[in-house]
Amino acid sequence: MSEEQFAPPVGAFTRSVTIRFSHCDPAGIVYFPHYFDMFNGLIEDWYTYELKHNYAELIMGGRFGFPFVHIECDFKVPSRIGEIIELTLLVERIGRSSLGIAIVCHRDGLVRLRARMITAMMSLETKKPEPLPQALRAAMEAYQYRTAPQTRA
Amino acid sequence: MSEEQFAPPVGAFTRSVTIRFSHCDPAGIVYFPHYFDMFNGLIEDWYTYELKHNYAELIMGGRFGFPFVHIECDFKVPSRIGEIIELTLLVERIGRSSLGIAIVCHRDGLVRLRARMITAMMSLETKKPEPLPQALRAAMEAYQYRTAPQTRA
Amino acid sequence: MSEEQFAPPVGAFTRSVTIRFSHCDPAGIVYFPHYFDMFNGLIEDWYTYELKHNYAELIMGGRFGFPFVHIECDFKVPSRIGEIIELTLLVERIGRSSLGIAIVCHRDGLVRLRARMITAMMSLETKKPEPLPQALRAAMEAYQYRTAPQTRA
Amino acid sequence: MSEEQFAPPVGAFTRSVTIRFSHCDPAGIVYFPHYFDMFNGLIEDWYTYELKHNYAELIMGGRFGFPFVHIECDFKVPSRIGEIIELTLLVERIGRSSLGIAIVCHRDGLVRLRARMITAMMSLETKKPEPLPQALRAAMEAYQYRTAPQTRA
Repeated sequence: MSEEQFAPPVGAFTRSVTIRFSHCDPAGIVYFPHYFDMFNGLIEDWYTYELKHNYAELIMGGRFGFPFVHIECDFKVPSRIGEIIELTLLVERIGRSSLGIAIVCHRDGLVRLRARMITAMMSLETKKPEPLPQALRAAMEAYQYRTAPQTRA
Repeated sequence: MSEEQFAPPVGAFTRSVTIRFSHCDPAGIVYFPHYFDMFNGLIEDWYTYELKHNYAELIMGGRFGFPFVHIECDFKVPSRIGEIIELTLLVERIGRSSLGIAIVCHRDGLVRLRARMITAMMSLETKKPEPLPQALRAAMEAYQYRTAPQTRA
Repeated sequence: MSEEQFAPPVGAFTRSVTIRFSHCDPAGIVYFPHYFDMFNGLIEDWYTYELKHNYAELIMGGRFGFPFVHIECDFKVPSRIGEIIELTLLVERIGRSSLGIAIVCHRDGLVRLRARMITAMMSLETKKPEPLPQALRAAMEAYQYRTAPQTRA
Repeated sequence: MSEEQFAPPVGAFTRSVTIRFSHCDPAGIVYFPHYFDMFNGLIEDWYTYELKHNYAELIMGGRFGFPFVHIECDFKVPSRIGEIIELTLLVERIGRSSLGIAIVCHRDGLVRLRARMITAMMSLETKKPEPLPQALRAAMEAYQYRTAPQTRA
């Protein structure tokens, strides 16, 4: 569990989460599935506030779903009740109906955990993958472009 | 499920919660145990930010616990993904080691649900009830006084 | 937290639950919202295996929901990781579309916690209360009759 | 999401999980963090019932923890309320204090999801990695040997 530094790219979507009593296990640290729940909340807010596509509306109105097809996660430093951690979302790859993102959880410039997740847009009616709507894709591409590592230079 | 109006007393501790995808069940409304989890988060913030007694510090440093001994809850109006609801905490009764609170969940001036909860302060070491420390009790009493219904008049 | 004994009525629907690491909080005891989740699981199994009305089918096929309108709960004795607790469901009152039940959580003949919950059957389409179907009501009444306290004599 | 068949090796530790209302999201399928919670329950039971090392006792008595350092997961087929799925645990690699496992979630001989997880045994007192105790390691090695793929031949 070596130290890994992290500074979010300028303009990257970052949200703070307070570690709650309910997040923590008998060892006093966050029980790991709660991180994935935090990630989903981050993604919801990213759609709504950064991409300007209301997530709840996409689900309930558009009848779209965004199930994960692949997740990988490295846990570096545990988090404890009362700490405030930062979650930053970065786009890695935009496919026809799939989206590859990275989520970095950090505090004080050090990585706590780091996840890569691939989600696929699907129709809740047909249960089939659905191509990303053009406006949504454009918003994702613009976000990816403006937060790409080279833009920090 | 009749309509019930609610205006928080001036100075009452209120926090907003965004209803997440993960809060909602196959019927598209909040799965009820999540409300209790929101309540615990509200109480944590009330200790820390309103009473100025850091909740995490009380638990991990002071080795105190605040288990519930009684809960009752009336559910009036369901909540849906994407809605932002308000939670207001009111003090009903302060005992030697027990605390009776009410939590009203509301939106647009209408009650969504309303809970009454009694918690008891206990030592995590002795597993016995612990009298509320004087400074904490004073902070609770001051809060109860300044948010009592008559102060709205 | 005085001791309270409990012996389930003959024929009462009882299920065991193993307390998991994930149920427990930094104090090493079950975080209370998890009990409500266990209760919902008990109710699902009661519909399916005792009343012979498949719960999943009622929800997904019948498009019915069973939201709670009232819950009250007294917590007597905390539960810890690795313990196996028993949950017993008893019927208190059957209304037109509502059902009042009691759930007693016990171990070694002693009550751990005790809840009373009122649920209302509703249509997920109309969002209105729905009268309990006759066959379901008959199964509930038969269960209530055969597990009523007097039948223990 | 191509079909992938799976038959657990003879003697592999497998447990059934009923998909609950509470596991499912507004799309009617299991909300993914719940799978990780199921995995932890499977691991607890594997320690206790297969390796004959009581998990709760290791945590609360031995003051050991088993945090995850790496997780990866491929989601193939969603699961729905009322379904009973099977979880099978296989050992991939036993290190000094680390353990690499695979968990396959399947039903009717088809993979639903498949995870690889690396956990490290640590002391809750020193917060440092702890070498696996010899008896626990021996039990893990014996399990790995008797459930290795070649034993299916």
